[in-house]
Amino acid sequence: MAGAPQLDGFFKQVDTLSDHFIERLRKAVAIPSISADVARRPDVFRMGHWLADELKALGVQVELRQLGKQPDHPHLDLPPVVLGRYGSDKNKRTILVYGHYDVQPAEKADGWATEPFDLTVDSQGRMFGRGSTDDKGPVLGWLNAIEAHQKAGVDFPVNLLMCFEGMEEYGSEGLDELIEDEAKKWFADADAVCISDNYWLGTEKPCLTYGLRGCNYYSVEVSGPGADLHSGVFGGTAQEPMTDLVRVLATLVDTNGVIQIPGIKEQVAPVTPEEETLYDGISFTMDNIHESLGSKTTIFEDKKSTLMARWRYPSLSIHGIEGAFSQPGAKTVIPAKVIGKFSIRTVPDMDIEKTNELVFNYVKEQFAKLGSKNTLKVDVLHTGKWWVSSPKHWNFSAAAKAVERVFGVQPDFTREGGSIPVTLTFEQATGKNVLLLPMGSSTDGAHSINEKLDKRNYIEGIKLLGAYLHHVAVEPTS
Amino acid sequence: MAGAPQLDGFFKQVDTLSDHFIERLRKAVAIPSISADVARRPDVFRMGHWLADELKALGVQVELRQLGKQPDHPHLDLPPVVLGRYGSDKNKRTILVYGHYDVQPAEKADGWATEPFDLTVDSQGRMFGRGSTDDKGPVLGWLNAIEAHQKAGVDFPVNLLMCFEGMEEYGSEGLDELIEDEAKKWFADADAVCISDNYWLGTEKPCLTYGLRGCNYYSVEVSGPGADLHSGVFGGTAQEPMTDLVRVLATLVDTNGVIQIPGIKEQVAPVTPEEETLYDGISFTMDNIHESLGSKTTIFEDKKSTLMARWRYPSLSIHGIEGAFSQPGAKTVIPAKVIGKFSIRTVPDMDIEKTNELVFNYVKEQFAKLGSKNTLKVDVLHTGKWWVSSPKHWNFSAAAKAVERVFGVQPDFTREGGSIPVTLTFEQATGKNVLLLPMGSSTDGAHSINEKLDKRNYIEGIKLLGAYLHHVAVEPTS
Repeated sequence: MAGAPQLDGFFKQVDTLSDHFIERLRKAVAIPSISADVARRPDVFRMGHWLADELKALGVQVELRQLGKQPDHPHLDLPPVVLGRYGSDKNKRTILVYGHYDVQPAEKADGWATEPFDLTVDSQGRMFGRGSTDDKGPVLGWLNAIEAHQKAGVDFPVNLLMCFEGMEEYGSEGLDELIEDEAKKWFADADAVCISDNYWLGTEKPCLTYGLRGCNYYSVEVSGPGADLHSGVFGGTAQEPMTDLVRVLATLVDTNGVIQIPGIKEQVAPVTPEEETLYDGISFTMDNIHESLGSKTTIFEDKKSTLMARWRYPSLSIHGIEGAFSQPGAKTVIPAKVIGKFSIRTVPDMDIEKTNELVFNYVKEQFAKLGSKNTLKVDVLHTGKWWVSSPKHWNFSAAAKAVERVFGVQPDFTREGGSIPVTLTFEQATGKNVLLLPMGSSTDGAHSINEKLDKRNYIEGIKLLGAYLHHVAVEPTS
Repeated sequence: MAGAPQLDGFFKQVDTLSDHFIERLRKAVAIPSISADVARRPDVFRMGHWLADELKALGVQVELRQLGKQPDHPHLDLPPVVLGRYGSDKNKRTILVYGHYDVQPAEKADGWATEPFDLTVDSQGRMFGRGSTDDKGPVLGWLNAIEAHQKAGVDFPVNLLMCFEGMEEYGSEGLDELIEDEAKKWFADADAVCISDNYWLGTEKPCLTYGLRGCNYYSVEVSGPGADLHSGVFGGTAQEPMTDLVRVLATLVDTNGVIQIPGIKEQVAPVTPEEETLYDGISFTMDNIHESLGSKTTIFEDKKSTLMARWRYPSLSIHGIEGAFSQPGAKTVIPAKVIGKFSIRTVPDMDIEKTNELVFNYVKEQFAKLGSKNTLKVDVLHTGKWWVSSPKHWNFSAAAKAVERVFGVQPDFTREGGSIPVTLTFEQATGKNVLLLPMGSSTDGAHSINEKLDKRNYIEGIKLLGAYLHHVAVEPTS
């Protein structure tokens, strides 16, 4: 294999085609493929078929995989997974990429400054539109990279396998089974996996992401009376489920985020001397988090503690209570059954089952202390394991070289506090290294109003994806 | 004044007219006068005018008082208060009665066994229909009593003043001002007040109610971040308002209803030896409360403690949290601003302002202990004072004699845990004794599906209202 790939022709072609690529994104954003909205399901299908047609026009071999009906809407068809293959040269590496063509809900009335499904570019090059950064921009990045190679007459450096789903924003229904099913079929040749569906840590410097926290989501139900009661009639005579629930929830975590459940922190992998040195170099400041938080109510005052808390320590958040009065105003109800919801973000080497057991026992103990006649049920609603990959794998070193080539800086190697469950699914099903290679920046507002992708991130991001494929094609096996 | 009034003619006439009286209730129930539903406002007006027409047909002098626009819907007219006067004989006592002609919302789809606005009488004599017991049955009770006197040729024993409103189920908007305004005008002659808008303690024995608890309703807001956050990204790095709020709410009251706020119980009037003896005779059992509670999760195991807790001790209930996740399912949100709602039922001799001050200080102290950077606001959303009248007043002793006459038993003298704010308003505005004289029973389900009034309670209740007027006309001043 040779030295540094020759990329100038490809880069120049991306610049030449930049308006065309923005038009392609405009067409994609214009299809309101909201997977959470039953009424928009035809648009999700339309988006899947549009994407398949675009791929076919580029010479990609495409198959649509049907996933059956949606479990919570038994008459509703799930949108297809679009599988693609571009090239089948036995002498080239094969890279499997994943993305999703569905989007979060959006309506102008939610507070958007522009029409959410009409891509609007402002004077600063910000391209506003639902799905621009999450995840239509990155998905089209792969298509654009193919097209730029074709028009520049540059040989495509790898065989590219594609897996684009249409239900990511609604639980990726059916995807795990498909990935496992295709692991030895459509995905059988994959040498490595690349997912572009997360974000830079800040706005200036690209990053490569090698770790994610997991999430165990719990419910604590306290019930007693047969129906909701009037607090005038029953206040003082009935043991109130809401009182008990609040007292149990108050024992879970303190204001500084310290989890009070014994046995949780004991499972956390110790910080190695190598890891100790890793945080200082990361392009991240307390100003960054204060800005994204919209306040200075952080637990820590320094960068290192903050990044460690986000990436490598567990956290516990109380999300809310189902069954209690939750509207504005005043209602004198004693709720008969209330369900508290909280979750724990998990990290290496926490075990899902062991953590569940610790939580269940602790919650039951705290409730027992109350001496209440009410009934407690504690349950886990869903779990997803943490994921940590090796950033020294050739898949990552190739991506790092691509970042240096396109942006002139060494990327940050980052982890994330949230979970992207498909990452672990791909790793386990294929047995290959998975790289998270984000295109958008921390200010894109993926699930918020005024979602955007900066023109720079899109166009340079196309170059990055292409450069990554060139480097990964020749990177020595590590 | 003479001895026991002669009532047989009146009673017999009520029995004779019972089908006619049920038809009158059927017509009233058929008008869906839901005050909380803007779309039903024309029906509330229609109900007010129907009631005025019925009164006029009986020879009652009627005036409609307009209350202007509804504060939270500035283009919506409030329904009129129907003022009535029947008789103006200077030699008779004048009794002011209050009721309301609006009803709670109801739709068959809520789970009603019958059409809620179609009065349906079953084989046990239960008359199902929205408003049957709350409060159209009792309001029509006064009209029926007048008609039965006319048809029986029995002289009406008092001058009757009537005040029937159409917004009771939506905060009695505008009523307090009207009562104060009319205190020295339409209501100027009143010697005593009678309100029939509550319920027997059980199902067999009538009661006279001489006390109500008050209610102070509080909000505790904790805020920090500029917007809702993703718990994956911010869990462990931000101080979470929900954690702080739950910890503050957990300090308010324990599972056995003991209020933890210092200075509350110190304000409660001590139990007198006379009061000690009062509870044993009340027709009430623990089975009654277990049945209405739908469970055995009571704080106390004995009747006396239970009644005292409901009637004469304060209680604190946590109603819910606004701004947190309250839907079914799982959402990994860190809410940016959460508002806990709780209320304290107040009793003699608690002072509203003093109680507010104790609550505000305690909540602030508890929050300060957390050492949080988040922001706390504690506020009172509404207050209503407790009310206790003298059950030895001639207004009560007359009513007790009427109960004995109609039902053959001595009534229980009861208090209630809830509040009926208009009671105190009438007492303060007129300076006269107020009696609560219920018609319905504890199983009527006033605000629930399948609201009903038993035929016995309605027909014997009409006799009771008439008998009360005869007794109150001749009862010696106490």
